[in-house]
Amino acid sequence: MDIRPVFNTIGVLVIILGLLMLVPMSVSFCFHQNDVWSFFVAAAISVGLGILIKTASNTTKTPGVKESFAIVTLGWIIAAAVGALPFVIYKACPTYHDAFFEAMSGLTTTGATVIENVDAQPNGILLWRSLLHWLGGMGIIVLFIAVLPGAGSGGSRLFKAEVPGPLPERIVPRIKESAKTLWLIYVGFTVAEIILLCMAGMNLFDSVNHAFATMATGGFSTKAASIGAWANPGLYWIITVFMFLAGINFTLYFQASSGRKLKVFFQDSELKLYFSIILVAITLITANLYLSVSFQSFREALRHSCFQVVSVITTTGFSTVDFNMWPPFSKAILIILMLIGGCAGSTAGAIKVSRILALLKHGYKESFRFIYPRAVTLPKINGSPVSRDTLNTITAFFFLYLIVFAGGSLIMTGFGLDLVSACSAVAATLGNVGPGLMAVGPAVTYHPIPAFGKWVLSACMLLGRLELFTVLVLFIPDFWRKG
Amino acid sequence: MDIRPVFNTIGVLVIILGLLMLVPMSVSFCFHQNDVWSFFVAAAISVGLGILIKTASNTTKTPGVKESFAIVTLGWIIAAAVGALPFVIYKACPTYHDAFFEAMSGLTTTGATVIENVDAQPNGILLWRSLLHWLGGMGIIVLFIAVLPGAGSGGSRLFKAEVPGPLPERIVPRIKESAKTLWLIYVGFTVAEIILLCMAGMNLFDSVNHAFATMATGGFSTKAASIGAWANPGLYWIITVFMFLAGINFTLYFQASSGRKLKVFFQDSELKLYFSIILVAITLITANLYLSVSFQSFREALRHSCFQVVSVITTTGFSTVDFNMWPPFSKAILIILMLIGGCAGSTAGAIKVSRILALLKHGYKESFRFIYPRAVTLPKINGSPVSRDTLNTITAFFFLYLIVFAGGSLIMTGFGLDLVSACSAVAATLGNVGPGLMAVGPAVTYHPIPAFGKWVLSACMLLGRLELFTVLVLFIPDFWRKG
Repeated sequence: MDIRPVFNTIGVLVIILGLLMLVPMSVSFCFHQNDVWSFFVAAAISVGLGILIKTASNTTKTPGVKESFAIVTLGWIIAAAVGALPFVIYKACPTYHDAFFEAMSGLTTTGATVIENVDAQPNGILLWRSLLHWLGGMGIIVLFIAVLPGAGSGGSRLFKAEVPGPLPERIVPRIKESAKTLWLIYVGFTVAEIILLCMAGMNLFDSVNHAFATMATGGFSTKAASIGAWANPGLYWIITVFMFLAGINFTLYFQASSGRKLKVFFQDSELKLYFSIILVAITLITANLYLSVSFQSFREALRHSCFQVVSVITTTGFSTVDFNMWPPFSKAILIILMLIGGCAGSTAGAIKVSRILALLKHGYKESFRFIYPRAVTLPKINGSPVSRDTLNTITAFFFLYLIVFAGGSLIMTGFGLDLVSACSAVAATLGNVGPGLMAVGPAVTYHPIPAFGKWVLSACMLLGRLELFTVLVLFIPDFWRKG
Repeated sequence: MDIRPVFNTIGVLVIILGLLMLVPMSVSFCFHQNDVWSFFVAAAISVGLGILIKTASNTTKTPGVKESFAIVTLGWIIAAAVGALPFVIYKACPTYHDAFFEAMSGLTTTGATVIENVDAQPNGILLWRSLLHWLGGMGIIVLFIAVLPGAGSGGSRLFKAEVPGPLPERIVPRIKESAKTLWLIYVGFTVAEIILLCMAGMNLFDSVNHAFATMATGGFSTKAASIGAWANPGLYWIITVFMFLAGINFTLYFQASSGRKLKVFFQDSELKLYFSIILVAITLITANLYLSVSFQSFREALRHSCFQVVSVITTTGFSTVDFNMWPPFSKAILIILMLIGGCAGSTAGAIKVSRILALLKHGYKESFRFIYPRAVTLPKINGSPVSRDTLNTITAFFFLYLIVFAGGSLIMTGFGLDLVSACSAVAATLGNVGPGLMAVGPAVTYHPIPAFGKWVLSACMLLGRLELFTVLVLFIPDFWRKG
């Protein structure tokens, strides 16, 4: 483990992040708003700091395997630390704890906010939040590999650590080319959504922000009431569809774009399960709402249920209603969806459908082996058996995820939160969803959580986004050994 | 799969259960109470039914592997169905749903009750509840093997299915001998506890009942206020110690009694973890109670916390206070303990400490393999590696346990229960604990749960007690195939 190439890379990252602050600065300048100077100061500090880090850790060594992991985890933490500057300098967030939470929530595409008066924020601040989502979404470090040379042999590793979920098959080995293609797909979807939102009546600025937040499955909105601030059902449906698309494995888009055609979508068992879970959840919640809540109509129950189910399973976290007011049965479904999450290789967070699929098959196979102990069986996904190593990683991931969930919830109850608030706050941050229930429901913010609690939840966001192992390995003493 | 030897064995089981009803009948007769006839009628029906089943399924075939599983699961269900008779005939439970729930709760050593006026019940009914615990505790079917000949080749299998948890090493192959020794240990502990409770001032009848419920880690009490009905701290400590002992792997007592001496207790890693979890939980809860609840003294906080932690982790479910009134942090710890449970091979329920231990080591090994992908490592317990098959069974068990937990909780919210009540009801029945929180807290009963909900929770008790697989295999079509 050599720390120099790690900080050398992170230095460049900080410089880029500083330069990117000029984007919201320019927007606020055009809108004649008062956060221009805050962005300028933040950008200057960031670029200066980046140059300092890069100079101090000057090296020509390329990062190895361990260095790559350190770049991802430390890079994310430092990016959040730097990304927090505009929030704290403009005083959009009262303290640095809050600003860090907001930036981490952005970069991990969580969308949990501590800003109570979102509607009153200048456009620069709003755009910066969405931009953090968008950058985090596909992985600022994928961008890094695609745009910058010199990431070297660690590239493949970085990529593995970065794209969420267990990749079902190796995508083309030329990692930089792939990253560029994936990035293009991501940009394509974003542009398409901006156009559709504008056509449906949203103004350009809001469209850009919401498209950024949708494709990253982030969930920051420009309004405190989130999508519920618009009374236009057309917008709801457009966003529902794009959230759904953002929750699909991007490898499928990649394959479809490189000649394998649409067939890939119909053959993918993860996608089938993802779609089935959504359908079942929508049916149950619509029935529950229609029967027990005085909604105006069945159509309205269906629309809100579709939106909320897709928003939660894709871990976006937009809301059209305060689902904390829904009956317990619907809330229980939403909590389960928060834990499941979207497809592997998408921008969604949480456990991921492919892992649930593998575990379901594993559970069945093991029940079978209980009667026929000699049956040697590995679960198959998409026709080919899951390797023993992959299965071991998945079972360990599932256990660790729930340990972090339980431990995090326990700590949060220590701050006096009730059980449902504590558990849903951790489920929503660990799964990168955003809003939880009760004290952290969609109608309120994470602002009242004590400072230490915000750091715990920030850690949950990071752990969830980087799929636990990438962060956990840093706590293994061997990791820091030389060589 | 031949159904005849299954019902042939179950017939005998039902006859025995019918004859056992004469025990509470005699007791009530001595106390001149009015439930004598109810027991007589129930006994007559049971013995008659048992003879009918045995005659109808007459066969000399010994049960094979699959038949053994069917005997365990169906045997347990039919035993509960028959064990419910005294409750419903005497009208201690208003409906058969309630009576079945109560009997299943007894036989699975859960201790969740639907009887609202426990204090007013005659001694026969009270003893029958404790007796169901005690029989279920070590496994009515272990008793069956030890006492009755002819269980045949299925014996070893039955035993495997019966004694809870993954057995760390094979106990002596002569299964009947072992079962007898284990039974003697069980009886020995029970007698010791009865004597101590009497010495501490509890009357003989209550001592017998509580000793039965303690050693089975059941939790039915003769008082609605459970152990809290006695104001004697000496009693609390005696019961705390015996609950702790009942939560330890009985294989250790077996080994200690067969010459390996006390050494075995200090070398067992599961026991160490079990003890550590208890110590940590007691420390945290005592601190939490002392700082945030107006208890009379630190000593009282410590005593209640010791009692409640041991009661919940051993899945006994006795209570000295209404822990539903405790702060969220303490409640969160209790819920985690409900899911963990005691040691494998004890009468405790839930996931079991040995599985948690294996999963923790698995999680660490997999994190390690993330940096060194070629490291082939299986977790070691007590110095020897856990086999790949065992590990697979454990990971599948953990996943299935949580699926049942989530599914069960979801169904319970469908009956209008709030999230905490629903989740804790399922955690408490699946883990064979007994009382949960809120609507199913220790100060209330399961009586208000709708009938269908009671059947769902009864199924949870059975699934938990028989460690999922034994029950789940019945749903695999292959199971019912001939041969």
